[in-house]
Amino acid sequence: MKIAMLSPLSWRTPPRHYGPWENVVSLLTEQLVAMDVDVTLFATGDSLTRGKLAWVCERPWSEDATINPKVWECLHIAEVFRRADEFDLIHNQFDFLPLTYSGFTNTPVVTTIHGFSSPSILPVYKKYNDRTHYVAISETDKNDELDYIATIHHGIDITQFPWREDAGDYLLFFGRIHPHKGVHDAIEVARRTGLRLVIAGIVQDEAYFQEQVEPHIDGTHVEYLGSVGPEKRQEVLGGALALLHLIHFDEPFGLSVVESMACGTPVIAYRRGSMPEIIRDGHTGFIVADVDAAVEAVGRAAALDRRACRDDVEQRFTFRHMARAYLDVYRSILDQRENHRPWGHYENLLERDDHKVKELIVKPGERLSLQKHQRRAEHWTVVSGAALVTVGDREIPLMPGQSVDVPMGAVHRITNPGDVLLVLVEVQMGDYFGEDDIIRLEDDYDRS
Amino acid sequence: MKIAMLSPLSWRTPPRHYGPWENVVSLLTEQLVAMDVDVTLFATGDSLTRGKLAWVCERPWSEDATINPKVWECLHIAEVFRRADEFDLIHNQFDFLPLTYSGFTNTPVVTTIHGFSSPSILPVYKKYNDRTHYVAISETDKNDELDYIATIHHGIDITQFPWREDAGDYLLFFGRIHPHKGVHDAIEVARRTGLRLVIAGIVQDEAYFQEQVEPHIDGTHVEYLGSVGPEKRQEVLGGALALLHLIHFDEPFGLSVVESMACGTPVIAYRRGSMPEIIRDGHTGFIVADVDAAVEAVGRAAALDRRACRDDVEQRFTFRHMARAYLDVYRSILDQRENHRPWGHYENLLERDDHKVKELIVKPGERLSLQKHQRRAEHWTVVSGAALVTVGDREIPLMPGQSVDVPMGAVHRITNPGDVLLVLVEVQMGDYFGEDDIIRLEDDYDRS
Repeated sequence: MKIAMLSPLSWRTPPRHYGPWENVVSLLTEQLVAMDVDVTLFATGDSLTRGKLAWVCERPWSEDATINPKVWECLHIAEVFRRADEFDLIHNQFDFLPLTYSGFTNTPVVTTIHGFSSPSILPVYKKYNDRTHYVAISETDKNDELDYIATIHHGIDITQFPWREDAGDYLLFFGRIHPHKGVHDAIEVARRTGLRLVIAGIVQDEAYFQEQVEPHIDGTHVEYLGSVGPEKRQEVLGGALALLHLIHFDEPFGLSVVESMACGTPVIAYRRGSMPEIIRDGHTGFIVADVDAAVEAVGRAAALDRRACRDDVEQRFTFRHMARAYLDVYRSILDQRENHRPWGHYENLLERDDHKVKELIVKPGERLSLQKHQRRAEHWTVVSGAALVTVGDREIPLMPGQSVDVPMGAVHRITNPGDVLLVLVEVQMGDYFGEDDIIRLEDDYDRS
Repeated sequence: MKIAMLSPLSWRTPPRHYGPWENVVSLLTEQLVAMDVDVTLFATGDSLTRGKLAWVCERPWSEDATINPKVWECLHIAEVFRRADEFDLIHNQFDFLPLTYSGFTNTPVVTTIHGFSSPSILPVYKKYNDRTHYVAISETDKNDELDYIATIHHGIDITQFPWREDAGDYLLFFGRIHPHKGVHDAIEVARRTGLRLVIAGIVQDEAYFQEQVEPHIDGTHVEYLGSVGPEKRQEVLGGALALLHLIHFDEPFGLSVVESMACGTPVIAYRRGSMPEIIRDGHTGFIVADVDAAVEAVGRAAALDRRACRDDVEQRFTFRHMARAYLDVYRSILDQRENHRPWGHYENLLERDDHKVKELIVKPGERLSLQKHQRRAEHWTVVSGAALVTVGDREIPLMPGQSVDVPMGAVHRITNPGDVLLVLVEVQMGDYFGEDDIIRLEDDYDRS
């Protein structure tokens, strides 16, 4: 199976520090490669993969201000679709823009919707709902107006988040410093419980940081670590009593929540978005309504079994689960392709009012149904392999370069008696070419 | 000839007040329609045309903040390319994003480059240089790294800009209020010449307006009209002594310069961008180096012949000139299409290692060359019309549904003896399918 994996260009894949989408893309890609899937990763030129890397943009635009995102993103997307015929399937993890190129290829496209940044982007997803396949990253992030082929939670590399038996003595905020993320709620909870708060993450909203976070930082009660890279992440997460994830929007998924639980650290979160789906209330953390309830939950956090947090992640949120689930999605799409048949498959080359041209590929030992058509004649030319064809009461062997006419109404059948693929070009002539003008008299696959 | 004309979504086509790209698109579209070209205009849903209107986005995003430009622009562009097969040619007047969809259709794409907003967008134009056709809007705006099929100046509707014999008593600034446009230079020139200055245009840089323009507005020496709609434009332009176009960047074209000259009002401009190409120095205005020279030029402006300004526009800058020039470009592209031949044309349906499938369409009374191939056999099936084919020393008439084999090396020819199109499907089998494996023995069109 040949997969094209389309990653964003905002950060390297995998990211050097921050970059959740690129992180997920990398974990999935590497695990698929480990499972012998042939994956070509379309990402920035400095990306790292054990699969094949394809790139047009050398560096991530978040790390290089000379790169115009609008320019390089469309070149990046056009490149994967230019090469679409090389792949069985394209997995789009880039957001909506690639959808508008999906109509120009017959290669199926799976899109992981990493959340809706705004309701204003919904029209694109609705427009391509019928011709592409959407994967939700949580049940709660599903939009009623879209169809989804699956919900697949993100998975993490648990070896990067070793379990710690003993609970630490501090509360932790881990994420971007932004009002939506509720850093001020975490500070309030820490103050009221008398526990130390450690804050880790990049500042996304500078004014918010200066007004509502920085004045509380004293190194004793409230400590700010800045952005924490992959190495230090497990230490900070594992050493906490609990992660405070008191966020003010419906987060579609929470990678840091799962990473925290992997280390054994339970999570206290507001009842919003995917939190009730990820956290088992009273087992791996607490789902709360407000600051009062969060303060109360902190008092019960030490009593939770840190092993249960780890176990739950091992059972539900590893990259192996994620990769197996995506592989199932890929397989189900490839099995259902419109032009696939039990005997092989076909490709439509041309359709006009009075004629249609197809290429048929018949597997060794297989044969099409014994059939006839009322509104079209057919003409077959074998181009490789060998055929045994039935036309009326004749049985005719055909070698490459040989051809035969099937008059309108004549009973006919194609058999591949050999042990290599039979390829033939079919020219249909008539005034109607629909699949419902197939009258099957006999079929190895019991189709009507 | 069927043309898809792709307009931006920023403003209505034609624009209600401001919107230079949409203005040019509208003038070209309507004139092509008047010349019996079948034009489908892809623009906002509220656009006006005597051609066919196609739209996915109801209103322009500059007039409706609920419209997400990124979302609707990609849907808009994808729509024209989804319908590409319906058109002989797509004319892109949208900037660079449509280029990245151009690889998914065989319909030729012409792109008018309305200037480079930044050097950072050049990579997209370079990438698609070989497969699309660029039109420059002035010689000066050409980029050395790109190939252009033509330079076509914008044309205006001169009936909207009636000529005025007598020069007015004020100087005019006409354009967006932005430091690049040199409003402050115009104010300085007016002050030093003692003449009144009239300023017309939308404020694009509010701080600049407040600091460098507004303090001078007194209604007597300096007057500000705000944005001036299409009706009042000719009055303001025609009533001036001269237009001051003292801009600080290399403007690729200047519509208001041409509109001013159409009214008979000469233009004083800095020697930058397209100005020396549009203004005939000493005849329809003056090209100057700085404010001192502009002040001096104002003194000579009244002596210029206002009829000469009008005449020059009539001879070089009408929408009729523009439309004829674009029509020439369209025709030259369609004549050179790769799959067009003197006898008709063909379409490639499939190309594999060991076979290739084509549809051939032969015009009535025409015939292909008498030819042979060394590395491929061919098999022809007539699907409509009638054929007379030569294979070796045989002449074989073929009706729809009938077919014939052409062995490798056999001399052959296809003739359409009838008076309707002959359509046939050709299956080539061999190991090489290049055009250089055609050995022509005789040809009606003297090809080697």
